[in-house]
Amino acid sequence: MSATPIENLSKLCIHTITTKSWSLEEAGERYEAAGVKGISVWRQYLEGRNIAASGDRLRNHGLEIVSLVRGGFFPSTVAATRQKAIEDNLKAVDEAAALGAEMIVLVCGADPGQSLETSRAQIQAGIEKVLPYAIEAGVKLAIEPLHPMYADTRSAVNTLEQANDMAEAIGSEFVGIAADVYHLWWDPHLEKEIKRCGANGNLFAFHICDWVSPTVDMLNDRGLMGEGCIPIKQIRGWVEEAGFSGFNEVEIFSDRHWASDQQEFLANIVSSYKSC
Amino acid sequence: MSATPIENLSKLCIHTITTKSWSLEEAGERYEAAGVKGISVWRQYLEGRNIAASGDRLRNHGLEIVSLVRGGFFPSTVAATRQKAIEDNLKAVDEAAALGAEMIVLVCGADPGQSLETSRAQIQAGIEKVLPYAIEAGVKLAIEPLHPMYADTRSAVNTLEQANDMAEAIGSEFVGIAADVYHLWWDPHLEKEIKRCGANGNLFAFHICDWVSPTVDMLNDRGLMGEGCIPIKQIRGWVEEAGFSGFNEVEIFSDRHWASDQQEFLANIVSSYKSC
Repeated sequence: MSATPIENLSKLCIHTITTKSWSLEEAGERYEAAGVKGISVWRQYLEGRNIAASGDRLRNHGLEIVSLVRGGFFPSTVAATRQKAIEDNLKAVDEAAALGAEMIVLVCGADPGQSLETSRAQIQAGIEKVLPYAIEAGVKLAIEPLHPMYADTRSAVNTLEQANDMAEAIGSEFVGIAADVYHLWWDPHLEKEIKRCGANGNLFAFHICDWVSPTVDMLNDRGLMGEGCIPIKQIRGWVEEAGFSGFNEVEIFSDRHWASDQQEFLANIVSSYKSC
Repeated sequence: MSATPIENLSKLCIHTITTKSWSLEEAGERYEAAGVKGISVWRQYLEGRNIAASGDRLRNHGLEIVSLVRGGFFPSTVAATRQKAIEDNLKAVDEAAALGAEMIVLVCGADPGQSLETSRAQIQAGIEKVLPYAIEAGVKLAIEPLHPMYADTRSAVNTLEQANDMAEAIGSEFVGIAADVYHLWWDPHLEKEIKRCGANGNLFAFHICDWVSPTVDMLNDRGLMGEGCIPIKQIRGWVEEAGFSGFNEVEIFSDRHWASDQQEFLANIVSSYKSC
């Protein structure tokens, strides 16, 4: 089965970080004007705001609030730091509930001062500590496996297989996975693991962007869909075949695109989305 | 089983690129003086030289020539470019034979203009084309799986599992694998795949360095052993348990270390080697 053609923008969501310089209010207005139907809100855009009112305002722009980004960063060699991470994740649950976001995306974290196995155990323990509070609030937690180039400090969960293992080990309908093509495209087991993820009801979110060549910055050189080598359409086909019918979330960190005219960038996101 | 303690330098090999600014002759002299026993020669260091005489000269310094670096770069969307790559690999076989190097390390290549599957098929086809000539010359070919962050342009073989699959599919005692901790350390299947690699007689080479945090350059910011988070000793234990008894090859690309006093850097390589 190949990906269904994209005929409209009903499944297009944009992460606020993608249009980094726009305030939440500006993003809401401009996304609506461009026909975008979903928004994923990075937490820094909520600072100093009434969160519930911000959520209503976004919904009044016809935007579904797909996710709050981001929780996680559980591992540390220092117990007090791990405890602080738990507290911050509980706060994120409050924010997501107030905003009306269905889920929180977890950038799981890693500490280069300890083994990946230890970091992974701390991630799972962290999620399990936050989970009862999240369930109570009706907020889902989405583990995002990150590219292996981030294994030292950002995430010890680096493949969809590992994320599937962890989500299944936790075994709650409130814990699933955010699959981002940027992190996963190289993986020879991707198709199989997407199928597994969907079959187990764990495929919560799908993020898109592209991998440009050469990539000059490990963090902030993502491409617009079509600018790079990721087979986005093929992966989207696998995701749909696995039963996913949620938003396609555009999440682009790019010094290059951030330095460009952001209204033009938004138009390019919309047009490149239609062809991916 | 844990790694055997390093009691001397009898298994220490250094890649000439590690001390980038030194000529082959200077590297030979200085490595010998430092007690190093092996050298892996990057091809650019042979330019304008009588290769056989260079090999003798290195051996007269008490150095075993572990490998010639590097062949590969087989994939391309352009047939003529693929043919040129084959010819360059045949030339590398001649160079390795003249130098007296047992093997050539293959950086397999990738082309972002085509799928990873196509690139992998071209890699295997390329190796199979070069193989009869390599066997004739008595030169082995070592597939080096590269970190997934290089999947776009440098190698479509990104895990030891994939390298094992390919080496086994080719099925020649002249084709095996160079395992580099920098590329593989994050992989949850590493121990299992090292065991498989050794059991099948495919573990030809073992490369070491470290992953520093933060890594500021995707290519040239490798660390000295101990500067980063790679569990080198643990991985070396797995490699030895898999039956490997060859050299531990230090291969460090680092703008930071290259800018330092190279004699001091060599001393640091030796001391950090002893503790890894």
